[in-house]
Amino acid sequence: MRFCSRCASELTHGPVPGEDRDRLVCPACGFIAYLNPRLVVTALPVTEAGELILLRRAIEPGYGKWAQPGGFLEIDETAQEGAARETLEETGLIVEPTRVVGIYSRPQAAVVVAAWEARIVGGSTHPTAESLEVRPFGPAELPWPLIAFQTTTWALRDWLRLRHPDMVDGLPDAEAPYPPESA
Amino acid sequence: MRFCSRCASELTHGPVPGEDRDRLVCPACGFIAYLNPRLVVTALPVTEAGELILLRRAIEPGYGKWAQPGGFLEIDETAQEGAARETLEETGLIVEPTRVVGIYSRPQAAVVVAAWEARIVGGSTHPTAESLEVRPFGPAELPWPLIAFQTTTWALRDWLRLRHPDMVDGLPDAEAPYPPESA
Repeated sequence: MRFCSRCASELTHGPVPGEDRDRLVCPACGFIAYLNPRLVVTALPVTEAGELILLRRAIEPGYGKWAQPGGFLEIDETAQEGAARETLEETGLIVEPTRVVGIYSRPQAAVVVAAWEARIVGGSTHPTAESLEVRPFGPAELPWPLIAFQTTTWALRDWLRLRHPDMVDGLPDAEAPYPPESA
Repeated sequence: MRFCSRCASELTHGPVPGEDRDRLVCPACGFIAYLNPRLVVTALPVTEAGELILLRRAIEPGYGKWAQPGGFLEIDETAQEGAARETLEETGLIVEPTRVVGIYSRPQAAVVVAAWEARIVGGSTHPTAESLEVRPFGPAELPWPLIAFQTTTWALRDWLRLRHPDMVDGLPDAEAPYPPESA
């Protein structure tokens, strides 16, 4: 971020009146270029049998590994609409996000991931441009060693805590809950 | 958003290979200027007596009306850290956000508001540059007609649903839960 998106002048970084931290600001027109994390909206679709739908990613990051459907929220939709749109695009399922499972931050990547439990109301699973494979996992068979993102691990753990609290203690990584992301 | 923040060329709006919707893109360097909603992180601090701390806003929008502490998430903090930082700045209280109360979208304003219930662990309430007044409200005395934002009304209702489900039916606007924002 080097130039002003409003007037094309070169931005400077420093103190700005009325701001409590240094900002990127345009010396020509005064525009402040705020840097904010982006929101990733995701869904944990649950089948009638109580299984979670996950997908094996067909794109980087996390190619070949498992994650819940999700993506960046667009400007003209609600967060739940975004999670449902991404779920349809990546799994073929029509869902209604219901309960918030958690909000997970990765400042290293400047993202915040929100995860909703979701009711499946239509569609059918199939591989997509973004998924090599889409399939249900029972709560006892979640693919822990092959999860794409730490935020997915956190969301799956919180979902288990919510729906199967008896199962959380037995997880392989139960001794290191919510560690800072290493990769 | 008119010029490329990377090379200062004028952006164009239209189809872009690999993107499933029209984007603002730089014809000179190929930079895509994604437009994403910003995340507002807020806290509902609860006193030992079970009261909620709200503030009367000293700035627009919502000048003179009541809201929970909160503000835009910065690039170098987690969502919970941001909610705690804003709470300290606006109320004088040191809090630890605990449970997510809800996530509320206002596409009209390109924001998503996340609200955490929060434990008060230090500090003391006082007016600040952003608050005319800071005070506790019992669950039966929340200032419904004087709330600054629809998202605050939604968060307070969800908090009541969580902690005082018997009280939700009696709310003045109980017939119109979660309407689209009119103002």
